[in-house]
Amino acid sequence: MNTLTSDILDRLRGADGFLSGGELCSEMGITRSAVWKHISLLRKKGYSIEAVSGRGYRLSGSPGLPVPEEIQPFLSTARFGRTVEYHETLESTNQRAKTLAREGAAEGCVVIADSQTGGRGRMGREWMSPPAANLYFSVILRPPVPPLRLSQIPLLAAAAIHRTVEATVDNVSAMVKWPNDILIDGRKVCGILCEMETEPDMTHFVIAGIGINVNLREIPADLEGIATSLSIESGNEWSRSEILAALLNCFEPMYDEWLEAEDLGDILPYLDRYAWLKGKEVSVERYKGSVSGKVTGLGRSGELLLMDNDGTEHAITSGEATIRKEA
Amino acid sequence: MNTLTSDILDRLRGADGFLSGGELCSEMGITRSAVWKHISLLRKKGYSIEAVSGRGYRLSGSPGLPVPEEIQPFLSTARFGRTVEYHETLESTNQRAKTLAREGAAEGCVVIADSQTGGRGRMGREWMSPPAANLYFSVILRPPVPPLRLSQIPLLAAAAIHRTVEATVDNVSAMVKWPNDILIDGRKVCGILCEMETEPDMTHFVIAGIGINVNLREIPADLEGIATSLSIESGNEWSRSEILAALLNCFEPMYDEWLEAEDLGDILPYLDRYAWLKGKEVSVERYKGSVSGKVTGLGRSGELLLMDNDGTEHAITSGEATIRKEA
Repeated sequence: MNTLTSDILDRLRGADGFLSGGELCSEMGITRSAVWKHISLLRKKGYSIEAVSGRGYRLSGSPGLPVPEEIQPFLSTARFGRTVEYHETLESTNQRAKTLAREGAAEGCVVIADSQTGGRGRMGREWMSPPAANLYFSVILRPPVPPLRLSQIPLLAAAAIHRTVEATVDNVSAMVKWPNDILIDGRKVCGILCEMETEPDMTHFVIAGIGINVNLREIPADLEGIATSLSIESGNEWSRSEILAALLNCFEPMYDEWLEAEDLGDILPYLDRYAWLKGKEVSVERYKGSVSGKVTGLGRSGELLLMDNDGTEHAITSGEATIRKEA
Repeated sequence: MNTLTSDILDRLRGADGFLSGGELCSEMGITRSAVWKHISLLRKKGYSIEAVSGRGYRLSGSPGLPVPEEIQPFLSTARFGRTVEYHETLESTNQRAKTLAREGAAEGCVVIADSQTGGRGRMGREWMSPPAANLYFSVILRPPVPPLRLSQIPLLAAAAIHRTVEATVDNVSAMVKWPNDILIDGRKVCGILCEMETEPDMTHFVIAGIGINVNLREIPADLEGIATSLSIESGNEWSRSEILAALLNCFEPMYDEWLEAEDLGDILPYLDRYAWLKGKEVSVERYKGSVSGKVTGLGRSGELLLMDNDGTEHAITSGEATIRKEA
């Protein structure tokens, strides 16, 4: 968006009621017809702007797209979201973010798409990415920590998303499924796919890819009982840009604290409190065979702690957990 | 190289002495002038081929370039080096190998350059890469192991390179400096830069980038006392393609054994035997401060074991070790 157009949008947002066209002209040093041109551009982008003769202009509706102009005014961050790249459609926001990161993009840069044609979850699985409903975005991180700590980032992101959902969305009660899903009533509302480029002792960058089912109304038949959305669970529609801004505001300070810590730090008791797997009998698939047992909690570095039938405790750093039976 | 040209090269290589032009014609079903054309092409590529009237052709010299035609005939591997991409010059073989890996290149694919314009070592340092002297290459690996094990790959590669140097190059005695250099008489003759793309619980690929100073005769002033070459240390020139083929032949079975193991397995006692740091007083720089102490050995997963002045043992998974004083 052109700087003048974006300036007018900011003034409309900040106005208490109508904003006089004459004042806009004199404050910005442009003509009435120029003001009108920018108002038209904003309307084309989906903003509802009332124009009343003698009173001026008033912003009465936003397009609801998670575009930079809708997100950045609500940020309290220093780095996260200060650069935002929005696309109507992308193959995958992680792919695009990786390209930007390789070209040197700064920490906190966010790539958003309204829809994805090749959205992916963990283990190469597909991530349902229809347009005009959900959030699909990737945050570029450059944590100065050894790669061994990077497996904690999905848990960190999960805690930040959980906090944001709890604070923003009424009438829902979300849980975190180790290592990187957010569930409401046992159904997935959010997934996280972290990808990283490293040397054994140096982290180049991490891409934290996040998909949140926000306003999706219809769950495809093959995901019935498996996936859900904030809208289905709460009965309301939610602003994608507000949720994203709230999440970035929550994520950045948590990330900064984590950088200073030796392990998961203060996030650990939080994750423990909302651990969906806790007390459940699970099987965890790993590269080499699976382990089964009852989940007793999380280790200090985010490992899933399992007690098997022989009473042996296992600390599992990575894998795919499935429920065997409710405890 | 054209299939017929490469076929003639193979026949010349396999011949015990001279190969008759007439036999070449009849066996290959081509004319004498066609044979001559291919011989000329081979000579242009740097092969020395004697042509004696009445006796035929004899291969008497190779160009000494680490090109596929010079490497592949000597391979006993199933995957390593079965695809080789040779470049006269590249910015960095790791960069090119990463691009190929992202496009789906198979495990074992090798990228070689005669020189690099932006050769890099660990921590973003420059790697001296002049033409016509050394080996600079990258092997694409796709190990089905969790990313936590990947920090063992530089040690695995170091052991394979050490074995190859011991078996191929006379008159030198090499040591392995944790985690990824090969030294002769305390000077660096080889460095390894592994880079990887992963998810927390899935390895996409690892690029094992290797630089070996083979026939370099002059060490630049700023590397005096720090770097050396196989040629300087042994007093002989060595065939780059033979060393590379020997290394790939050694590396592949060691890698396959490592995949089956839980940790470093049989490589551990080997690395211990040739551990240059063992018994030395070192400082190890890590992301968060440094640790100093005497090196007592290697842990099962390749950690450097240090005993500090208070008698506390430290297991260091990654970092940069510098000698404080000889023990």
